[in-house]
Amino acid sequence: MVTLTKTSAESTTVSIPDKPPVTEADANIARLIVQGTDHPGIVSKVSGVLASFGANIISFDQYTSDPAGGRYFQRTTFSLRSLSLEVERLRAALGKAMDGTHLRWKLIEARKLKRVAIFASKSDHCLLDLLWRQRRGELPVTIAMVISNHPDLSDDVRAFGIPYFYVPVDKGKRDEASQRHLDLLRENVDLVVLARYMQILTEDFIDDVGVPIINIHHSFLPAFIGAAPYRKAKERGVKLIGATAHYVTKDLDEGPIIAQDVIPVTHSESASDLQRRGADVERRVLSFAVEAHCQDRVLRDGNATVVF
Amino acid sequence: MVTLTKTSAESTTVSIPDKPPVTEADANIARLIVQGTDHPGIVSKVSGVLASFGANIISFDQYTSDPAGGRYFQRTTFSLRSLSLEVERLRAALGKAMDGTHLRWKLIEARKLKRVAIFASKSDHCLLDLLWRQRRGELPVTIAMVISNHPDLSDDVRAFGIPYFYVPVDKGKRDEASQRHLDLLRENVDLVVLARYMQILTEDFIDDVGVPIINIHHSFLPAFIGAAPYRKAKERGVKLIGATAHYVTKDLDEGPIIAQDVIPVTHSESASDLQRRGADVERRVLSFAVEAHCQDRVLRDGNATVVF
Amino acid sequence: MVTLTKTSAESTTVSIPDKPPVTEADANIARLIVQGTDHPGIVSKVSGVLASFGANIISFDQYTSDPAGGRYFQRTTFSLRSLSLEVERLRAALGKAMDGTHLRWKLIEARKLKRVAIFASKSDHCLLDLLWRQRRGELPVTIAMVISNHPDLSDDVRAFGIPYFYVPVDKGKRDEASQRHLDLLRENVDLVVLARYMQILTEDFIDDVGVPIINIHHSFLPAFIGAAPYRKAKERGVKLIGATAHYVTKDLDEGPIIAQDVIPVTHSESASDLQRRGADVERRVLSFAVEAHCQDRVLRDGNATVVF
Amino acid sequence: MVTLTKTSAESTTVSIPDKPPVTEADANIARLIVQGTDHPGIVSKVSGVLASFGANIISFDQYTSDPAGGRYFQRTTFSLRSLSLEVERLRAALGKAMDGTHLRWKLIEARKLKRVAIFASKSDHCLLDLLWRQRRGELPVTIAMVISNHPDLSDDVRAFGIPYFYVPVDKGKRDEASQRHLDLLRENVDLVVLARYMQILTEDFIDDVGVPIINIHHSFLPAFIGAAPYRKAKERGVKLIGATAHYVTKDLDEGPIIAQDVIPVTHSESASDLQRRGADVERRVLSFAVEAHCQDRVLRDGNATVVF
Repeated sequence: MVTLTKTSAESTTVSIPDKPPVTEADANIARLIVQGTDHPGIVSKVSGVLASFGANIISFDQYTSDPAGGRYFQRTTFSLRSLSLEVERLRAALGKAMDGTHLRWKLIEARKLKRVAIFASKSDHCLLDLLWRQRRGELPVTIAMVISNHPDLSDDVRAFGIPYFYVPVDKGKRDEASQRHLDLLRENVDLVVLARYMQILTEDFIDDVGVPIINIHHSFLPAFIGAAPYRKAKERGVKLIGATAHYVTKDLDEGPIIAQDVIPVTHSESASDLQRRGADVERRVLSFAVEAHCQDRVLRDGNATVVF
Repeated sequence: MVTLTKTSAESTTVSIPDKPPVTEADANIARLIVQGTDHPGIVSKVSGVLASFGANIISFDQYTSDPAGGRYFQRTTFSLRSLSLEVERLRAALGKAMDGTHLRWKLIEARKLKRVAIFASKSDHCLLDLLWRQRRGELPVTIAMVISNHPDLSDDVRAFGIPYFYVPVDKGKRDEASQRHLDLLRENVDLVVLARYMQILTEDFIDDVGVPIINIHHSFLPAFIGAAPYRKAKERGVKLIGATAHYVTKDLDEGPIIAQDVIPVTHSESASDLQRRGADVERRVLSFAVEAHCQDRVLRDGNATVVF
Repeated sequence: MVTLTKTSAESTTVSIPDKPPVTEADANIARLIVQGTDHPGIVSKVSGVLASFGANIISFDQYTSDPAGGRYFQRTTFSLRSLSLEVERLRAALGKAMDGTHLRWKLIEARKLKRVAIFASKSDHCLLDLLWRQRRGELPVTIAMVISNHPDLSDDVRAFGIPYFYVPVDKGKRDEASQRHLDLLRENVDLVVLARYMQILTEDFIDDVGVPIINIHHSFLPAFIGAAPYRKAKERGVKLIGATAHYVTKDLDEGPIIAQDVIPVTHSESASDLQRRGADVERRVLSFAVEAHCQDRVLRDGNATVVF
Repeated sequence: MVTLTKTSAESTTVSIPDKPPVTEADANIARLIVQGTDHPGIVSKVSGVLASFGANIISFDQYTSDPAGGRYFQRTTFSLRSLSLEVERLRAALGKAMDGTHLRWKLIEARKLKRVAIFASKSDHCLLDLLWRQRRGELPVTIAMVISNHPDLSDDVRAFGIPYFYVPVDKGKRDEASQRHLDLLRENVDLVVLARYMQILTEDFIDDVGVPIINIHHSFLPAFIGAAPYRKAKERGVKLIGATAHYVTKDLDEGPIIAQDVIPVTHSESASDLQRRGADVERRVLSFAVEAHCQDRVLRDGNATVVF
């Protein structure tokens, strides 16, 4: 913006009043996740308990695969005066209400930010985007550490005040690396994010890590599963490229999809051009997925997801 | 699809099981709209009544501009066995529950399709798209009539079995035309859709018609208010063009926006090219808006809308 | 648009001055397509010939996979006074200039519209969109006939004044149907468009038809090759669905891609919802591809395409 | 990517072979821009000169507002062996060929990167995106300096090895600041980029700076001209928000548009949410515009642009 008005432009600017993270993390805000087999009366039961505590419902999202006994998903955010004093009593009341329903539920205080470890290799675009957003207050997480199989990005990361652990993955010594990873992560994080980490996670690691793992795949899955998707996209002559953020399972590139996006491309773009332009989609999709997960907006539904 | 399998491709096709209209219009489905000043306990109150009737909640959408006394909006769809027998009893129970809340509410049976009059002039793209979708069972409405100030499109419309009324609007005789419009519409329709109707609606008409009016404006409002937006867009050298569906108020092009979309354009496209390509956006945006309105998914919030 | 100005809105409207088809088909406009192995001087050579005839270049598109001996593609549109009188002399001059270059080229007079046969089954969305655009003057083609394995759409098609041939494809009598198709098409059409035609084309048909075939596949290929892509998309839990227009080859769903587009979807949409919403993408993508092909803007490059 | 194949995933990755900047900046690549009144034979004339030097045309873009005497725009990239030795001779030959045509033209060697000054205030999203892309090798420019009216971002900028000049703009001392700006910029830069610089540029500055200025405006112009567009967007209830990169002229927010993009938004997003999500669009649109400008792909056409 250039010459906004005769008086100072700056004073009229909308400032970001620290909204999303602070509101979400506000001491009196909580999220209630309910999931299981649908049966009549769930909404009433849950909202009844909340109302009896005087909670203000901020948002209420609900999805059922079939109103007659389908799979049920609910996310409620609410504010409750003196939440930290009331939370255990509320938990007990909810537990009682849910008793006999076969529904799983959890209550999360928004002020307790999820602790995240980011795995990276040499590409910095996804990693930096997450660090930037977190520093700007847009990503309500604590970034506990960055782990990489290369030393290259250490300066960039440490400039953010975040620990950087260089764990080389030597051929044939994958298991040792996995063990070091687990030693670093154990009890320290709630989520692992693979920000274009170009190494194989062992099955043991996936079994043992005990927290969700989000990966960004550089194609619109299920197209171009596996390595080198941009080259494959060029070879197939597609007119759009994209990226997919998904939870990692043992089935390669087959885990539940959280988010996807694409951009149009033309014949005149080389595989390198696709890779370069695709990087923008990758970082956007991954940041979206991490934010959604950390706000408990992503619920797993078999091998798919419900994203509220 | 060409050579799908060795056996017949046709048999394996996903057929549209008449879902959206029939499900929505299914005899036992209803929608409950609640709107007003937020206060704690609304969700509980409403869902409590529904649960007491044994209703299955199919979807539940809620928005509040501020959990502490903001403006509150809620749309619930549910199925209830023997709805038509129960509906008055349910209405009474809801009325009782809402008593003293200063909330407005309405209960709509999905089987009662809204009756729509479409106004058109010479351009057929928005009109035909609505007729096609309705015939295909995608638009859960009854199209009661088409009114036009030109006779040109009568054959097209009547081929759908829909009455076409040619009401010329002669200069200086606008009021007479309005009167004829009102005579045709009175008690017969629940919604008027201006599908690129290129005539002035009189203020009296807007006052007297008694049902909502949806218009499609051929720009991404508030850009290019008024006539000839594609020419203005060309002159301004914008890199995207679009369309806006909005409710009609007496303030020209200033009514509450329901839906908008845009497409990218380049320097090489003339104003006519923009008009031609923009037509695709117009019909898509208008059809979306009409469908959303007719499913009671659009709630007015001052001069804005909440679209669930 | 409602109350545009105090005077009549209609008179100020941008009218479509019959631009794309008429300009493109204008008696003095031609397109020159050049394709082959790149070598220095092609642009100069071609434009030199055109300049020597006094042609006005309207557009000039060029792509080379590698400026040092790559694959070269060029599309030039130009106007030339008294084109029909000059065209053979121009053709001779171009032939002479191209001699020894190993470049293939063709000169097409825009006024000679391509003749198209559309194959359909029961779904009308792609078919109607093509017929309607052609009637509107947006699609510079002649629609010679519609062929279907069902009688359902005959009234709709014939209302456009276009012949409708019902050719049932009985089990085990596929070859007979193909023969009837070939009898209808031979010498009569320049392009076959499969507008959601749900039958197997025989290899013999593809061999013998002698003109390009464009198909619309209802997924963003290469994802969900084969039948029932919307069901597969739902099962895989993707967050976007799309459509792909491609040339038909004997390799099922593997032909050169002309155009693709996608829309975002959510967990709450059923396979039927995906199919319904995807239909909008299908018709848009197919119409785009047919228009581009018929303006000679699609050049084949191995199993990919160059789209100018 | 997780467990790509049984062998190392890393080795199979497409690496970015430093393509766009290096190719573009390759010592033998040049760009020829031609602009003026169209007349027959321009393409032939220009390509004839290039062919006579043995240049390989890499890309050729052309646009004319009207083939009969309209405004003509052409951008040609080509490689020429020993360009630096030949360039003056080529320049002379082009000058001779253009003589008498009333066409303006310029020849730019791709290896001579444009020197850029970025102005910023407190928001870092656009600034960091530009610095980071340049470091990554995606933006073929030299970033000569960053100028800010706040000291906040100095550490971030200097970590990239780029000088940071803090020039406060005190009330009533705008002219002094402008003078300091001009002192810093004079002879040192080819482009000024306003990366969410929240201060008024004086008319004298715009007159005297002598290089183009690109600004990012945080709305889809011409909607929401002036300050606080996200607040205005919220108030108007639009369903999409966007950003516009444009050249700065003395008419506020009225300069030629280079690029625009939008994203969909809903009723549930506050003005702050819009601002936060819009920041992603801003950085994307600004980076695109700067890259296009620095590759001489943006030609001014009155108050519009031609973007090749």
